[in-house]
Order: sequence, then structure tokens, then C-alpha cells
Amino acid sequence: MQKPRLMTPGPASVPEEVLLELARPVIHHRSAEAKQVITEVAGGLKEVFQTENDVLILTSSGTGAMEAAAVNAVPPGEKAIILNAGHFAARWGEICKAFGIIPILVDTEWGKPVDPAQVEEALKQHPDAKCVMATLSETSTGTGHPIEAIGKIVAKTPALFIVDGISGVGAMECRTDAWGIDILCAGSQKAFMLPPGLAFVSVSAKGWAQIDSFDSKSYYFNLKAARKKMKEFDTPYTPAHTLILALRTSLRMIKAEGLENVWERHRRMSAACQAGVRALGLELFSSAPAEGLTAFVIPDGLKDGDIRGGLTKRFGVTTVGGQGKIKGKIVRIGHMGYTDEIDVVGALAALEMVLHDLGVKFNPGAAVSAAQQVLLGQKA
Amino acid sequence: MQKPRLMTPGPASVPEEVLLELARPVIHHRSAEAKQVITEVAGGLKEVFQTENDVLILTSSGTGAMEAAAVNAVPPGEKAIILNAGHFAARWGEICKAFGIIPILVDTEWGKPVDPAQVEEALKQHPDAKCVMATLSETSTGTGHPIEAIGKIVAKTPALFIVDGISGVGAMECRTDAWGIDILCAGSQKAFMLPPGLAFVSVSAKGWAQIDSFDSKSYYFNLKAARKKMKEFDTPYTPAHTLILALRTSLRMIKAEGLENVWERHRRMSAACQAGVRALGLELFSSAPAEGLTAFVIPDGLKDGDIRGGLTKRFGVTTVGGQGKIKGKIVRIGHMGYTDEIDVVGALAALEMVLHDLGVKFNPGAAVSAAQQVLLGQKA
Repeated sequence: MQKPRLMTPGPASVPEEVLLELARPVIHHRSAEAKQVITEVAGGLKEVFQTENDVLILTSSGTGAMEAAAVNAVPPGEKAIILNAGHFAARWGEICKAFGIIPILVDTEWGKPVDPAQVEEALKQHPDAKCVMATLSETSTGTGHPIEAIGKIVAKTPALFIVDGISGVGAMECRTDAWGIDILCAGSQKAFMLPPGLAFVSVSAKGWAQIDSFDSKSYYFNLKAARKKMKEFDTPYTPAHTLILALRTSLRMIKAEGLENVWERHRRMSAACQAGVRALGLELFSSAPAEGLTAFVIPDGLKDGDIRGGLTKRFGVTTVGGQGKIKGKIVRIGHMGYTDEIDVVGALAALEMVLHDLGVKFNPGAAVSAAQQVLLGQKA
Repeated sequence: MQKPRLMTPGPASVPEEVLLELARPVIHHRSAEAKQVITEVAGGLKEVFQTENDVLILTSSGTGAMEAAAVNAVPPGEKAIILNAGHFAARWGEICKAFGIIPILVDTEWGKPVDPAQVEEALKQHPDAKCVMATLSETSTGTGHPIEAIGKIVAKTPALFIVDGISGVGAMECRTDAWGIDILCAGSQKAFMLPPGLAFVSVSAKGWAQIDSFDSKSYYFNLKAARKKMKEFDTPYTPAHTLILALRTSLRMIKAEGLENVWERHRRMSAACQAGVRALGLELFSSAPAEGLTAFVIPDGLKDGDIRGGLTKRFGVTTVGGQGKIKGKIVRIGHMGYTDEIDVVGALAALEMVLHDLGVKFNPGAAVSAAQQVLLGQKA
């Protein structure tokens, strides 16, 4: 017997009661029932996004939301400042290039948080930039970026602040309106506790003013069309509405726990996982870890396949490795959404046993003990 | 007690065993298991599309597949001949305009099939057109268009033949390779017997040659990226893979029934529904009915809301009305995918009772009897 334990930073585990919603008979997407579902979901999304603005629902993966943000907010030939600090931040650059937007890359070493002073400097050098594109939680490096501080800087300029919150929203504190985020993108398969297939986008008044100032070349991802339909609690095209139905249930779960409590749970899981990993003599990859995942450096002499393969083969624990230039160099353990403290303890126990068998020296129980000390509120 | 009966031309009913697949725990989309699922699904899609070329999987509604076809195949500033015969055909025109492609509209009265001679004429007038965009089954009017005949004409020219098969593929005969369709689009929520959220696109060698001849402004819907990933049985971004898992089950069901038998079942359901509707003195809206739905004209003195509202309130039968300029003028009954002869008979029985109560005169049982005669192979 092997119990599957999905500990990846997206897709993340989906609660059983949400899975069962997906098995409900399909309803028509223009029915009164469908409208009622979107009405309820619209409120829940605003709460999780911490915004008074409508959160638009797209049927796509999170990348679709990023494309929608870029294409609708920035005319071709204009500049976008990209806070380039990882694989997914780099995607902002790829999207801009694909649509003729000029990417101005502000590079940060992978695993380090973006320095807000650099953003200020870039905005001074490029006062004509139409936006700053950032990442709340850089999934490829496990790094949380200082979105609040950057938001304050961007807010003083005409540029929009566009944030990829795909693996961050719901897994770490993010206050869209209070932090001056003009466009925030999220995806269903992370802390929203759903399978992949839906993306969410909020737009501020400043964001809409820029979007309304030109005719973007867009159709499926046209945000003006989505805004119009959302006013009627509808979507422009046939949405993945079994996922929207399931979203209602997962948003109810978030509401029942309380958003601040959800953030706090992720803080605890993150601190516990970091303490556990460190107790095994492993080095964290990020100097400013995000709260939905923990990335550690693979020690010299060990192989990614041996560690992650061992976790999967022996214990059914699925993790992910490095992407791009750090492929084979790190292991990432996801702990977002439908994950609790005991899941983290279990993953650490499995990691200990796999590393032990690979010849790494430590006292058995070291990681678990360190994690428990954190969870008990003691200093590790 | 009221049993829901979804008789809409998409989303259509989903088999119980497919729904249960959706409730399975989520797996990681880059796992060996996910690759194995896509490998099997890739074969099944080729069979349903009747093509030797790869069928690409997009996470979007069918409109996303249409956008992908247009943007990847036609450079901005070039011409596209659009066989404009309904609400969804008109969408081709909207998509072209959104991306700077010049739409050449060949208008056909709604409810009539496109005349292939008109297509030949349009291609002569516009020998520089990059494509002809058509619709296999025009859902808004319930019309099936002569795709095979049009395909023969387009094949003699350099233009690509791009077909929206969203509500047609799987519900009526469509032979992509044999009929010379260069790009065929389909969606999950029709005859594929799934909820909405996935779209499928096949591309011929002629299609790829045109796509490879320029750099399209696209990212999420870039077909070259999707082609590359499909060679490894993967997708460029996180796909709606619970739907892909469920697709495996629905494709197995289609394979078990046999594609020719699936088409034949739709022919029978369509003929039975048409006979039933006619037996009530109602007029079909289309002179060339598609096989996945039946559209009839609302008789003078009756209202859309009374007929469809009655069907829903009394019998839980959901149908749809007219779109665009025929809003309120027709009723459309869907019979595609997970629908059988008895579902059609049941819908006709419900329609009879609702019309009877609205004062329409006919012998009770007339529609059901006419449908049964068709199903029994007798002349109605």
C-alpha cells in the first residue's frame, strides 16, 4: 500500500469535499444556478485577493492570466520593467517579447528577494515604463518578494504594478488594494485548493484607466469583455464551470478558517519545514523563503533523482526539482492550500529516511523534532 | 422530485463514470502517470478527429482554440474568408478583427447551409486569402455545413481550410484528413462528454507550413510551443489535467461504441427529434439540420420563456433559445454526446405536454410516435 502525498508547489492537494463537487452533474453555464454560483464566488475571490475590485475569472492556466495582464495593460512598443528573479519572473519577459512589449529586465540573483531600491532606480531610468511586473512567490526558487514595499514605490509613478501571485495568493499575506497592486494574477491549482484550469485577475481603477486608454489586440483574454460579463456574474465564453462550482466550496473553506488564519497556517508550515530541513544540515536555496514551499540545495554527492525518486518510490511523496539553470540543484517541497502541519512533519520524516539511506549523517528524528519545536512555539 | 435533464447543445451531459474520474485525487502534471494519460488520449483524439496529425490540447474553452487557429495561421494584415452563416461563424470575424486580420465575409442566411459555389467564387475573387474559416455544426442555428464539399474546393488553392468543429466533432461525421481540413477546433463540453475547460486543435502539414512561415504574436495559444510539447506527450503550461484524465475515460467509451456507431447514433437521434418536432406542427429552423441538436421555430402566439420555462419547471429539461438576431425566435434541443434515443423521446414527451398546456393542438403522443417510427426504421 502506498498513499499518494502531493507535496508539490502546484498543483497542490484538493480537499475531498471539493473533489466531490467536481463529480456533480454538469449544469448549463447561463442558468440561474450558474449565476448564483458566480455571485457567491465573486465575493469570496475579493476577500482572498483583499480587494474591492472585481476579480475576473478566466478558463486557462495561470499563464493565461499573465498574458491577459500584459496584453491588456501595455500597448506594443511600450516598456515594461520586469523584476527578473526566477523562472516565472522570466516568463513575464517572454510574454512581453511575444507581444512586442519592450522588457526592461531588473535582474536579481535567483533565490534572493528583489531589492526595492533597484525598482526605484529602474523607474527613474525609465519614467515612460507602463508597468512594473513582479512575482509574489517565485515558485522556481521558493522566494517571497517584498511586494508591499515595491508597491509603495510604484504607486508614486504612473506605472502600473502587475503581480504574478499564482503560487502566492492564499498561501502568504497579500493585500491587493492596501499594497497598491494594480493587476494581480492567480491560478486555481495552488492555495485555492482546486485542480488547474481557472485563473483569476483583479484590476484597480488605475489599471482600468490604462486598459481603457487603448484597444488591445486580444479576444479570448480581453479583460474589458470579462469585466462587462462579470458585472452580470457571467463570463464571455463557456467557462470551466465545474471548477467554478468547486471553487465555491474551497472559498467557503477559506472563509470558515479565516484568511488571516490561512496565512498564519502557511507561516507555521513554512517555518517548520525550514527548521526541519536545516536540522538535517541542508541549506535553504532562498534567503527570503516564500511561505507556500521550501526549496533546499541538494548536497554535494547526492542526486536529485535519488532524493525525490526515493521520496516517491518509498513513501508516495511527490516533490519537484529545480527548473531552468538550477535543474538538478534543488528540491522543492510544496506546503500550500490543503496541507496541514502533520503533512509537513510527514514529509520531513520521509525525507529523513530517504537521506539516511543515502548515507547522510544526522540523528534520526532531527528534522521532525525541529519542526515540532516550531509548531509548539518553541525556538528550534 | 425533479430529475435534471441537460438537453443543451453544450455543455452536454457527462457520463457518471467520467464525473467520478474528476473526483480522483490530483496528480502532478509532469509525472510519469500524467504523461501516460496524455499518450493514450493523444491516440484517442486522432481517432475522433480522423487525422494522422497530432491533436493539440489547450486549457481554454473552444473559443481559445479558434483564436489559436486564427492567430497562428494568419498574419495581421492578411485576408481570411469567413463563411458567415450564424452566431459562431461570426465569431471568426470578431477574432480576425481583434488581431488585425482582414475578414472577407461570405454571408449565408441563418439556418441555410453554405453553398460551396460561393466559396469557390470568393476564393477566385480573393486568391490572396490565407484561409477559409468555416463551421461544421453552427450551434446557433442548428445547421450542418457541407464541410467535405468545401474542403475539396479549398484544397485546390494555397488557402488553409480552418473549421470550427466545436459542437460538431464526435456528433457528426467529420474526416479531417480525408476532407482536407487544415486546422480543426473542438471543445471538451460537447460530444467529448466532458465538462468545459479543454479545447483541441489539429493541424495538417499544409497548416504547419503556413504557421511556420511567420512569427505569430502569441504566447499562451502558441501552437508551435504546443506542438513541441505534444511530441513529448506534455503541454506548455499547467493543463486542466483532471479533465485530461476524464477525457481518457470518455475516449475509451467512444472507442468501445465505435466512432462510426457514435455518428450513426447521432443521425438517429437527430432524425427522431426532427420527426417528433414536425409531428407537432412545428417548423425546423434549419434547412440542413446538424446532428447534435434540433432547432425549431417558436410558433406565433407562443413565447420562448413559456416553452423553455415550462420544460425546466415541470420536467427539469434544460434547452436553449436563440442567440443574437434570432433571440426569442427559436428553441434548440441538444442531443449530443452522452445522450441516447430514450433521452430524445423523453424530451419530446415533455415538449408535447408543455405545448399542450399552452394550447397547441395535436394528438397527444404524436411527437413520441413519430420519433419512435424513425427509431424503428419505419417511414414517419
